[in-house]
Amino acid sequence: MGMQRIVVLAGGIGGARFLRGLKKAVPDAEITVVGNTGDDIHLFGLKVCPDLDTVMYTLGGGIHEEQGWGRADETFTVKEELAAYGVGPDWFGLGDRDFATHIVRTQMIGAGYPLSAVTEALCARWKPGVRLLPMTDDRVETHVVIETEDGGRKAVHFQEYWVRLRAAPPAQAVVPVGAEQAKPAPGVLDAVARADVILFPPSNPVVSIGTILAVPGIREAIADAGVPVVGLSPIVGGSPVRGMADKVLAAVGVEATAAAVAAHYGSGLLDGWLVDTVDADAVPEVEAAGIRCRAVPLLMTDVDAAARMAGEALALAEEVRG
Amino acid sequence: MGMQRIVVLAGGIGGARFLRGLKKAVPDAEITVVGNTGDDIHLFGLKVCPDLDTVMYTLGGGIHEEQGWGRADETFTVKEELAAYGVGPDWFGLGDRDFATHIVRTQMIGAGYPLSAVTEALCARWKPGVRLLPMTDDRVETHVVIETEDGGRKAVHFQEYWVRLRAAPPAQAVVPVGAEQAKPAPGVLDAVARADVILFPPSNPVVSIGTILAVPGIREAIADAGVPVVGLSPIVGGSPVRGMADKVLAAVGVEATAAAVAAHYGSGLLDGWLVDTVDADAVPEVEAAGIRCRAVPLLMTDVDAAARMAGEALALAEEVRG
Repeated sequence: MGMQRIVVLAGGIGGARFLRGLKKAVPDAEITVVGNTGDDIHLFGLKVCPDLDTVMYTLGGGIHEEQGWGRADETFTVKEELAAYGVGPDWFGLGDRDFATHIVRTQMIGAGYPLSAVTEALCARWKPGVRLLPMTDDRVETHVVIETEDGGRKAVHFQEYWVRLRAAPPAQAVVPVGAEQAKPAPGVLDAVARADVILFPPSNPVVSIGTILAVPGIREAIADAGVPVVGLSPIVGGSPVRGMADKVLAAVGVEATAAAVAAHYGSGLLDGWLVDTVDADAVPEVEAAGIRCRAVPLLMTDVDAAARMAGEALALAEEVRG
Repeated sequence: MGMQRIVVLAGGIGGARFLRGLKKAVPDAEITVVGNTGDDIHLFGLKVCPDLDTVMYTLGGGIHEEQGWGRADETFTVKEELAAYGVGPDWFGLGDRDFATHIVRTQMIGAGYPLSAVTEALCARWKPGVRLLPMTDDRVETHVVIETEDGGRKAVHFQEYWVRLRAAPPAQAVVPVGAEQAKPAPGVLDAVARADVILFPPSNPVVSIGTILAVPGIREAIADAGVPVVGLSPIVGGSPVRGMADKVLAAVGVEATAAAVAAHYGSGLLDGWLVDTVDADAVPEVEAAGIRCRAVPLLMTDVDAAARMAGEALALAEEVRG
């Protein structure tokens, strides 16, 4: 086939690394990324979009490689000064280079630009080689309901749960606040409708891809696109490849297994599913649920490994297309 | 006399250095500083208050000593990153440490705090040893009217005139936009009413002290306070000690001489005036205009020199009080 049009729903680190592999696997493809904005947060009066930035920095060559998020060669002068003023929070690690991104974004939003236009402007510098769209221009904030020490319940911002609390308190519910009223950002539904294939990278199925799918219209557009939808399991051997996806899977009543995540997406949405070779015994269960399944190595140890995974996902898509 | 209550109207560098001397000269005095906010500017969506910060950093021990403004040990990572995004202006030198101040200020203003409360919060860190009040919580922006290349006129923000254009185009007018509608910040009129002496440091008489006096109520309160009002000439030997005060003096039709500046303030406001020893021949002219005048060294070469100047100003105030 000619130039493929690929739509990818992406969270942060896992999505970004998969996308880097995908670009290497199909350098001529036209890739549109629909990024999660549910973990966006206002810090120090600035709008921070961790997932969009991780994709942008990773594909644009500015990422802190080992850490997976934030900028390479980062310094922390502003953060130290804010601490000297007694201004928090101190648990979110914003570096000086990163601050500049949030300052530009906040200034543009304050001037009336929607997040999609702001993201495009930021990408004019980073040239990520994909079209990066926020899932929505509206404000959606993922909250996690946890148990308090006195036995009550309270909702905290996803970043507070994830970064400050290290996902230690059991999550009782995950709520994408504002999602029901949100509209897909300009270009999202059109990209889905024109896609040749739609991919779910090994991103968090609840707080990353799940949040994107919670924006009314996006799940339906994907299900109705009439093109192969293929996902890659973020769970390998019963635990998340990275991050703490198992914590939030429990909150939505889904077992932390490759098969259970496939079933959570469901055959109404998903046509193909890649599990890791260590989870090969899950293949029959997934296929019995009506989702084509293959077991291949799913550890993104480097860009080549990610490229091979992307190639496998596209091969499975062609197989599904039949 | 016991603990003196001193009110000082201050611009940036000159005011800050004078205040450092004043604190040394009368360590037990209760000093209230009414700071100019007419050169405040929004940069990158952040509210920057150059004069208030110069006073705060200088008295709090954080100033870049040689430069006279900005922070010591400063780095410029954020500014470089903003430039990489193509976001300007590039002519205003905000360092990383300084950015933190503006981030805190902007966040507090966004949360609804008036500038006076924000300034107090920032000073809780810097402990300047004076009560630092903005002249007003309302927005006042000093604009300078200049001639354009095609012979027309246009108004530019004071910082653009001062920093970007280095005061090169002749200033035709100086307009403190918003001053007429501004109210003195809480505490300003009360401090003036309770003062034992009021001082005008060798700050810019037009864009610093002149702007403060343009806030309705402040000039009147000073004139009616019934206590000595003593100023120090920013003009020594026919030119400004530092800065480009002569440029904006011309715009208001005032000659750049020590005597002309005293006359510009006028005997209705000013009781005493210090000129530099090189301007000793101006003393009779100033006194003939009804303002007590002495010639003393007015170069703030170090803190001790500034302290001696402050001491001379207070001595002249006592002489005026009679």
